[in-house]
Amino acid sequence: MSKQRFDLQRSIMDKINIEEKLNLFNDYWNPKIIGELNDSYLKVVKLKGEFIWHHHDNEDEMFFVFKGTMVMRLKENNAVKEIKVNPGELIIIPKGVEHMPAADDEVHIMLIEPKTTLNTGNVINEKTVKKLKSI
Amino acid sequence: MSKQRFDLQRSIMDKINIEEKLNLFNDYWNPKIIGELNDSYLKVVKLKGEFIWHHHDNEDEMFFVFKGTMVMRLKENNAVKEIKVNPGELIIIPKGVEHMPAADDEVHIMLIEPKTTLNTGNVINEKTVKKLKSI
Repeated sequence: MSKQRFDLQRSIMDKINIEEKLNLFNDYWNPKIIGELNDSYLKVVKLKGEFIWHHHDNEDEMFFVFKGTMVMRLKENNAVKEIKVNPGELIIIPKGVEHMPAADDEVHIMLIEPKTTLNTGNVINEKTVKKLKSI
Repeated sequence: MSKQRFDLQRSIMDKINIEEKLNLFNDYWNPKIIGELNDSYLKVVKLKGEFIWHHHDNEDEMFFVFKGTMVMRLKENNAVKEIKVNPGELIIIPKGVEHMPAADDEVHIMLIEPKTTLNTGNVINEKTVKKLKSI
């Protein structure tokens, strides 16, 4: 049985507690897989500081904030828009939209995005995480 | 522009506050669409009482609890398992798994599931909601 299939079967048995998962790590900008459904992974991540401008050619992404305030910068019609996303709020970034998440203080996020999604989208640099850990 | 495409574009502009969406309705077992990403809808629903046993042939479903306690009953190897899902917890029901959500008291849920998902899965009865409202 593959590791991924095992994870999926485990999720039948167990509910997933988001806070418990977030307590398992402390690094920033390094999403961890906590579940899978259909063609997507469910991930948690901690953010602090600024990410990079990027977009995803083929994937819509959902960011749900649990703790702290995420600042999502978006480019629309050549203008930069800034949206503050607080706990209990989410934002969906449709494919093709240039965006840059940022956070003055630590923010805790749940992500849902297709399994094909690379964290830095169309950009490859030192922030790119090619192989995600499952927790 | 179709209504659905409008909703998606709106979600670029605006974050979504889950509690505000849940305050817009009071009926039970009637999921409302609050966003879309990739091939899935993001929905909110209020549950109270017992649903029906059903499964989804082709879709994994995610239930995330915001308020109250959901009791998810599952059939596995011909045994019924019961999992209590509390606020901040979620459960993924893989395709094919017989399940029945229930709640002694009102529970508030966010759902993510493919657009093709029918709430009652393989069963059609008075609880089936074929056309979902967007809020």
